[in-house]
This record gives sequence, structure tokens and C-alpha cells, in this order.
Amino acid sequence: MTRDPGTSDPMPNAFVPGQGALGPVETAMVARRQSLLGPAYRLFYETPVHLVRGQGVWLYDPDGNAYLDTYNNVASVGHAHPRVVSAMAEQAATLATHTRYLHDGVLAYAERLLGHFPAPLTHVMFTCTGSEANDLALRIARAATGGTGVIVTANAYHGVTASVAECSPSLGRGVPLGPHVRAIPAPNPHAADPAATFAADVQAAIDDLQRHGIKPALLMVDTVFSSDGLFTDPTTVLAPAAAAIRSAGGLFLADEVQPGFGRMGAAMWGFQRHGVLPDMVSLGKPMGNGYPVAGLVLQPPVIAEFGRAARYFNTFGGNAVAAATAMAVLSVIEDEGLMQNAAQTGAMFRKGLEALAKDYAALGDIRGAGLFLAADIVTDGQPDRARAALLVNALREERILISATGAEGNTLKIRPPLVFSEDNAAFFLDRLSKILNRGL
Amino acid sequence: MTRDPGTSDPMPNAFVPGQGALGPVETAMVARRQSLLGPAYRLFYETPVHLVRGQGVWLYDPDGNAYLDTYNNVASVGHAHPRVVSAMAEQAATLATHTRYLHDGVLAYAERLLGHFPAPLTHVMFTCTGSEANDLALRIARAATGGTGVIVTANAYHGVTASVAECSPSLGRGVPLGPHVRAIPAPNPHAADPAATFAADVQAAIDDLQRHGIKPALLMVDTVFSSDGLFTDPTTVLAPAAAAIRSAGGLFLADEVQPGFGRMGAAMWGFQRHGVLPDMVSLGKPMGNGYPVAGLVLQPPVIAEFGRAARYFNTFGGNAVAAATAMAVLSVIEDEGLMQNAAQTGAMFRKGLEALAKDYAALGDIRGAGLFLAADIVTDGQPDRARAALLVNALREERILISATGAEGNTLKIRPPLVFSEDNAAFFLDRLSKILNRGL
Repeated sequence: MTRDPGTSDPMPNAFVPGQGALGPVETAMVARRQSLLGPAYRLFYETPVHLVRGQGVWLYDPDGNAYLDTYNNVASVGHAHPRVVSAMAEQAATLATHTRYLHDGVLAYAERLLGHFPAPLTHVMFTCTGSEANDLALRIARAATGGTGVIVTANAYHGVTASVAECSPSLGRGVPLGPHVRAIPAPNPHAADPAATFAADVQAAIDDLQRHGIKPALLMVDTVFSSDGLFTDPTTVLAPAAAAIRSAGGLFLADEVQPGFGRMGAAMWGFQRHGVLPDMVSLGKPMGNGYPVAGLVLQPPVIAEFGRAARYFNTFGGNAVAAATAMAVLSVIEDEGLMQNAAQTGAMFRKGLEALAKDYAALGDIRGAGLFLAADIVTDGQPDRARAALLVNALREERILISATGAEGNTLKIRPPLVFSEDNAAFFLDRLSKILNRGL
Repeated sequence: MTRDPGTSDPMPNAFVPGQGALGPVETAMVARRQSLLGPAYRLFYETPVHLVRGQGVWLYDPDGNAYLDTYNNVASVGHAHPRVVSAMAEQAATLATHTRYLHDGVLAYAERLLGHFPAPLTHVMFTCTGSEANDLALRIARAATGGTGVIVTANAYHGVTASVAECSPSLGRGVPLGPHVRAIPAPNPHAADPAATFAADVQAAIDDLQRHGIKPALLMVDTVFSSDGLFTDPTTVLAPAAAAIRSAGGLFLADEVQPGFGRMGAAMWGFQRHGVLPDMVSLGKPMGNGYPVAGLVLQPPVIAEFGRAARYFNTFGGNAVAAATAMAVLSVIEDEGLMQNAAQTGAMFRKGLEALAKDYAALGDIRGAGLFLAADIVTDGQPDRARAALLVNALREERILISATGAEGNTLKIRPPLVFSEDNAAFFLDRLSKILNRGL
């Protein structure tokens, strides 16, 4: 089996089997992966990382080497957070059953979670993954609108089920978009009027759907456009876009799987920075700090028709352990002031990156909010995917874990656990400047 | 909002809000559920059960009343099994990261799991839910065959993503089947030649798909036809059906989400009883004893094209905690001889049901294998959905948890944790005969 990473595999930072400088143990593990897990799995890095332990912002290999994690947003309150682990273990030792029996845990968590949302968003449904949450949102949007048309951004990622994969252009040409899906450019912060441009693009997609006899059902956006390259600003673009899809009878979904749960610093959810009210909000990755729990928050009128026609049961979704674990995560975010830390450390970190960008031409645009930052890697001002890959792998050699993203694959994606400190940021900036000094 | 359980909600044993004899605490919980979780959620029973604790085959309400669990197959090795809980907690306290880094846990589990499959089934991919596993199977089948046609049985259930929900007729008329989906009758054990009839039905569906210009991609069956009413026998029906779909260029998927992991007693997987070799096998519910882990086992040629065109990454799927938890479940199944117990206790339990059926006309057909049994509830020999509902609720009053299934909703579905003992079975039979004695 051969594959061409340049065309069929658009994933930045994917390991190419046979390359890299793996030791004998890791070489054997790669071979076992290929023979056991098959060809659709990908490892990160030119030389993949072998991990055995995590603690806070640090991950460890079998030799005890510590890697600074500046990438993993799942372990959002820190790897192996003791409070989350014991909440999970305690509930698992007590009861782990589902939502067809009465249990207080799922209700207490739903109340606590919904307390973080503006008033009209008062219902929540639980799934196990962000993919399932977005997939459910599609089903609900079809029932509520009677339409099927979906609008996404040009390098969006919304998940891996059949229905959301066909709304995820970032999966590449090997995964075709659905005939009812239109992809529009992500907002361009350098446009004269980014909000007007983005709303016009949404409107053009609506017009094109209608011209094809397809009724628009859903505008689905990651509220920071993570996989498009992270466009956190300006925060004026979502409200007019949401108004446009609503005028056409469709709904607006805020995909908060990446920005949500305080990462933005200024707000719990990315949509709040835009002063827009979504019809539905999907949640995932950091919700259980690694435990598979996700959800969809809704305005009640949106779910009325789906609830009339269908029932929804997700065997593991919202089970007692998921609720207890997610509750502990929310408590840690609140009690340890992690949203505030994201704001403060993120601002300092971003300033440091901006300062480096003045000294090194390889660093182009610096973007981001809170603890979700991006640095474009360029050569002569142009996107340089290969150079970004060199940098990502050089940082890995310096024991800093990161990856690249964006349509051009040239954007460093900096998205550490929210317990990331100013010292951690300083460490990252120091190593990065060392590497840039070598002329990479 | 009104709904009509008879038409839009085909779920047997669903609670109807406003009915039942709930105490004040539970009445308040039901109201909170409606205001927090919305209208698509369903509770079990005329009077829902409020649970706070589980241990082995027992579930407990807040007053300490013990309910014998004869329904829940997720907690397959017993509720709150200490060995499973500590494996999960220990790994969560160590590392919980994903499959893009090298980690031994997922490989060790994959090896152990695949050791339970016949030779050509050598690859496994991990998801979080059975729905995701079946959804992935659909994507893979489309890539491998170039077709889209799917054949399922008339009251099949394969999951809740948009793509598998449209292959799940048991979700009712409110959830339409896809235009590329054909539903055929489940095997009829009373037919003159059940295998020939079932194969002919598969062939007729193939012909109809082709007549509509749809290339067949997948025959998808629960290998015990759980939601059709549990047709474990005869075990001759799957091989000719698999041959028929393969002749038409399609693949055969064994959905083992319900029968798998030893429940059948005689074999680890339902397909093995039929002496048939599937192209893909989906796994779910009992795999992590409540932890959200599921998977898809494949013959390598099936995944070649999908692996060439696409990558697959499931953030939580196959993470280190999922692997450690699932590994503990396999160990418990092996070390506690649970497959043997399913065979032995199941045989005794079935004999007891058959004996009761001779005395009580309300009990019709008794079916099943291992610890998955079914008893049709009839009046004058005809399916009686209302009587089945009365029995299910009467058993709940006797503190035995069970539910009903099948196209007519008149089949008692007996599917306890695999640690179920002969004493537990005797307890069930005793209470059931007491209820039947009252003329129910």
C-alpha cells in the first residue's frame, strides 16, 4: 500500500513509516501498530513520541524525559489531575448506569453546565464524543428546518462520523464533501471589512444551495476557526453570519469542542466573545479531561420537532461516571481559576511570540486568544509548510510537544493544558528562539 | 408538546410523564430532566427507577432496596467490578492520552482482543461507542465496494448517528430509513427452511437495490437479531446470507454490540455459532463494563482503500484508559469463567422458563442462548404488547429490572450481567411465576 502525503493525506505532522530515528522498542511498536490497527491510523512527528506518564503540563517517555505539552487540549485541567481521577474512580466504584433510570448526577451536572450559558440555551443532551454531538446537531437541524444544506468553512473539522466527515473539508480530498455541503473561506482578519465579507460568503453559499433546490439547515462553525488556522479575531464576524443563515430558515451551531471550557480566557465559550447567541452549541474534548464525554446545548424550540418524532438514547452518554468526571472538571476550572490563567498566561505568551516575530522573519502572523495561540511560519512572507514541519520536529527534539494546522499546514497550533504557567511559556519561547537562531 | 407512544414512539417500556406512582423526590427529578435534558430523552417503566448504587447483579435505590438486574449488558462483568474500576483509575492517574503517540496499552489490548478472533480478522480500530463503530463500518464499506446500498433486518437497531439511525428501523417512523437502505424480515425460526428463506430475502433486497441503480455495499446484522425479538437459532442462517451479499460485491458486518464478549456461552461472538466469517465485526456496550469504548475488527483487505484515501482519528477512541479498562474486562471474563457461566446458568435459566411456559399460556416462545434469553408474551397465542408491559412493570414492583423488545414489543428481553448465578435465575423464575399466578 502506498500513499502520497501531499495529496491524499493533508494532515500536517503525520509520521511517515520507515522514516525518523526510532529506537528498537519504538520501531517494534510502529510495526505492531501497522499490523494491529491498520492503515488509517496516523502517528505524530517524523520520529513519533513514546509516552508512559503525564502530570500537569508534562508528559514523560520511558526513559523519564519530560516533554512540555503545548498541544493537548483534552487534558485541559492538566494530565492525570488527581481531583478528576478520584471523582471518576469513586463514581465508577458506586454506579455507572445510564439515563433511562433516574440519577441525580446527570441532572446536577446539567444544571451546573447550563449555568455557564446565556438564558435561552437551557437544554443539554449528552454524547460520548464531539463527533457524536455535531452529528446529533445535524439530525436536529434537519428535523427543525426541514432542510439539509450545511455551510462550513474551507478547512473546517467537525468530526469523523459519516455525516460530519462530509462536513469536514480538512479531512482532505479522499473524504468528499456531501452534495448538500458548501465550504466558504474562513474569515480573513486582513480584509477591509472581515464581518461583511464573511456574511457575504455565507449568503453566497445560501444562494447556491437554494439554486440547487437544497434548503439551508445549518451554519456550523468552530468559533475560533481552529483547523482553518485559528482566527480568533475580529470578534465581529459571527453575528452577521448567524443572522444570514437564520434569514434563510437555517440554524447556527457554535462548535466549541476546541475553544470551549475557558480556553479563550475572556469567556467560557468562543461564541460569547462575538456577542452572538447560537441555536446549538457542541462540546467535547476537554469536557471530561480525557474521559469520553461530550454534549450538545440547545435552545428548546430547536429540539421540539426532533423530540416529537424521535427519541435519543446514547448508551454511555451522560452516564453517572461521565457526569461525575465532567463535574470535577468544571469544579477545577472554577476553583483553580483556569479561565483567568488562560487570559493572563495567554496574554504574556502571545506578547512573547510577537516579540520573537519582530526578530525572526520565519514567524509571520501571530494570532489567538487566551491559551489558544497560532504563529504562521513563512519564508519571504509566504506560507511555508515544510519549514513549519521542521520547526515542529525541532521543538519535539527540544522536548516540546506541538503541531501544525491550517489549510496550508504552516501554522503552529499552541493549545496547552490550561494549567500552563508563565514559566512554561518562557521555556517554550526560549527553546523556540534557540531553534530560530539556528536559521530554521 | 404531545406525543403518541403508539405511532411516533415505538419504544417498549417508555415512561409517560404524568403517569406512574412516583414519590416527591422522583417527581422533582422527572421535572428537572424535562427542563434540563429536553423532550428526546426517555425513562424506563410506568414508574421510573431511581438508582444510586450497583454491585454485581444488584442495583440499589436511595432507600437501600435491591433490584435484581436482568437487563443491563453494559455492566457485563457486574456493576462496579473492583478489578475494572482499579484498572481504570490507575491508568487515569498515570496517562490518558491518544493514539497519535506511541503507547503500549492500546497495542497490548489490540493483541489480546484479536486473539479471540479467527485468523483473517487481524485489524482493529477503536471508537467510543457502538454507534461510531457501525458508522465507521459504513464509511469503510462504501470505500471498499464503491457502493452505498445497505441491508438490515426489519426491526434492527445499529445506533444513533445520522448514518446508522437511517439503518435502524426500530427507531420508528419518526426516523426514516435512508433511500439506499432495504429492510428484510428477521429469520423466522418456524419457517420450513429458515436459512433458505433468509438468504432469499437478502437476495431480493440486493435485486431491488440494483434495480434502483444502487450498488450493494453492506449487509449489517446483529448476530442474534436482538431488537427483532432475539432469534439465536437456527445457526444456519448467516452463512448463506453472507455469501449472497458477497456475490453482489458487498460486505458482511456482524454487529456484536449485544451478543459479543461471551454472552452466548458457547462462543465469544455470535457469528461463531453460525460458522460464518464476517468482513467486519462491530463491538460496543460490554467492552469497558461502562467505560465508553467500542471498536471495529476487520479483515485487512477491507480497510485498504479507506486507509489509502482517508485517515481515522477518534480523540478518545483507544486512549490509554480505554485500553486498560477494556483489558481488565477481558481478564475478568477469562479469569472468572464468565463465558462458561453464561452457558451453564443460561441453560438452567432457559429450562426454567420453558417449564413455566408449559404452565402459563401467557408465555409463548422461549428463545435464546447463553445469558441472552427471550420470552414472547401472548394472549390466545397472539403477541400481546400491553400484557408484556404489565409484566415488565409488575417485575419492576417485585424489584427485578427487565425490559421488552421486538417489532411487536411483546418479547421479554432477559440480558443480565454475566456474573448472574443459578440462584439469581431461581429468584427471577420464582417472582415471574408469582406474577403469572395472579393471572397477569
